[in-house]
Amino acid sequence: MAKQVILASRPEGEPDQNNFKIEEKSLGALQDGEIHVKGKYFSVDPYMRGRMNDTKSYVPPYEVGKPIRGGVVTEVLQSKDDQFKAGDMIMGDLPWATEAIIKAKGLRKVEGGQIPLHYYLSVLGMTGLTAYFGLMDIGQPKKGETVVVSGAAGAVGLVVGQIAKIQGCHVVGIAGSDEKIASLKKDFGYDEGINYKTNQDMKAAVAKACPDGVDVYFDNVGGEISDAVIMNLNFHARIALCGQISLYNAEKTPVGPRIQPMLLTRSVLMKGFIVSNYQDRFPEGLQQLSTWVKEGKLKFTETIIKGFDRLPEAFLGLFSGKNQGKMIVEV
Amino acid sequence: MAKQVILASRPEGEPDQNNFKIEEKSLGALQDGEIHVKGKYFSVDPYMRGRMNDTKSYVPPYEVGKPIRGGVVTEVLQSKDDQFKAGDMIMGDLPWATEAIIKAKGLRKVEGGQIPLHYYLSVLGMTGLTAYFGLMDIGQPKKGETVVVSGAAGAVGLVVGQIAKIQGCHVVGIAGSDEKIASLKKDFGYDEGINYKTNQDMKAAVAKACPDGVDVYFDNVGGEISDAVIMNLNFHARIALCGQISLYNAEKTPVGPRIQPMLLTRSVLMKGFIVSNYQDRFPEGLQQLSTWVKEGKLKFTETIIKGFDRLPEAFLGLFSGKNQGKMIVEV
Repeated sequence: MAKQVILASRPEGEPDQNNFKIEEKSLGALQDGEIHVKGKYFSVDPYMRGRMNDTKSYVPPYEVGKPIRGGVVTEVLQSKDDQFKAGDMIMGDLPWATEAIIKAKGLRKVEGGQIPLHYYLSVLGMTGLTAYFGLMDIGQPKKGETVVVSGAAGAVGLVVGQIAKIQGCHVVGIAGSDEKIASLKKDFGYDEGINYKTNQDMKAAVAKACPDGVDVYFDNVGGEISDAVIMNLNFHARIALCGQISLYNAEKTPVGPRIQPMLLTRSVLMKGFIVSNYQDRFPEGLQQLSTWVKEGKLKFTETIIKGFDRLPEAFLGLFSGKNQGKMIVEV
Repeated sequence: MAKQVILASRPEGEPDQNNFKIEEKSLGALQDGEIHVKGKYFSVDPYMRGRMNDTKSYVPPYEVGKPIRGGVVTEVLQSKDDQFKAGDMIMGDLPWATEAIIKAKGLRKVEGGQIPLHYYLSVLGMTGLTAYFGLMDIGQPKKGETVVVSGAAGAVGLVVGQIAKIQGCHVVGIAGSDEKIASLKKDFGYDEGINYKTNQDMKAAVAKACPDGVDVYFDNVGGEISDAVIMNLNFHARIALCGQISLYNAEKTPVGPRIQPMLLTRSVLMKGFIVSNYQDRFPEGLQQLSTWVKEGKLKFTETIIKGFDRLPEAFLGLFSGKNQGKMIVEV
């Protein structure tokens, strides 16, 4: 019998444990083209909140009564497919299940050895690619420019800051605790950090940390933090919209100052994106990221929670900032 | 003695006649490198409202007690500069004055003949260039896509709609009267029109006029009209922010629904611009616009008000939609 985490009900506002249920499921017989896998590392991501709603978005919603899905590194136990054999490690968009029988098509084999396997869920996976393409393609940072990152201590934020530093920028991170800020500066190359929980006047705090104004804003959070950054933008600034976690649990349409006048008078570009827009360029991105990892220029950190049953808890922890870097559940 | 319109005081909220004063001024002696000119056609534009405030923007503010400036076509009466001679027609950013002595440097001679002189203030001037670069460079319309234009019956809007039509798009204009809508469809190639003053549910009205959703939004007005369009955007839509006239007279920061979540989930690009960003490409734009005018593909209309003293009245009329197409004052 395998265990799986299913969506028990759709949340209204902030999700809680009642929206999830752990169920047992018996696996059927293995068919041709299928593999029997055992989950090892599970990726837990803010964007999953959106899939819990029954609304049109860039990924289809989860179905009530069906398992949650996401990035998973699994080990092959049995294979009826030519590509894979028992013992192979595989990465894919897979259900939250201790074991599963899945179609082999579209899955990617990953190599362990020098690189920890869970890196394929983070810096060498969607997290790293999201940081790379959002910053490089939309942000287009130039040497000497100022880059501000919100949600800087989150998985994507850690990578964005380091890439911006590699580009020769003045890099400022916004996060929610003094410990996180200290780590951003000590471990991840950030020049300045702003604690949004202790700064009453965020507009002034951004202005102080960015004496030459803001050229690139990599936005993971939205809301009032973004308002403060936007008021400090330079002419021809670029905003990469990567996440809006401060608004994901809103039950009504969030309201705030209209930003178009500011974007207009300063000729600002703002662009929303999802990493799959860059699918054709993933090889380029992965190669660059691997190079930086091997050169020691790109470090990473995870919050690893152990135990399959703690997947819902790990996910819920994202909304209260329980993670530093990528949140991963290990089985 | 020359007459000039000066900024008497800075408006708070909607400007009125008291913010302007008409003064007489004696002209000094003509120096080398200067010309003595007589104003013929004066351009009256929404962006001038911004210059009446004492705030940092893309153009410096007008000074209280000094003349208002803008695009003017003038005739040379006397010249102490080699480039120009009496009788030449000249176009430039000049004071609102019946006559003036100005430096010749940076001014452009324009040819009359086939093309009416006031076209250099409109379709073959900043108006046409604004429409051309905003739509083509930011909007990047593709054949078969849907383009929505707010402020469609304004000077820029009339040109945008026709260029979008030349590109093979489904073109929808938003304007404030049934007469304007009728003219957009009859005279300027728009496929559909929406009267924002009589439609209670603008979101539904945009959805109806755009059955395949909105791919490009050329925004001249901002505010609630833009909210309605943004709710109908397609994946990978582009928004060119050209004006926000509905907000220019706001005394407090305008508030509205936060748009970033929508831009994020649909991978939308939004970009503010001013025409001078494209200065290097003006010759390309003017050549294309001239070609379309000569081929009869690009028509234009003006609201021409006669009399120098009516400049303030013409400007104020922009905010109540008194113009169709470009507002010009002829002396």
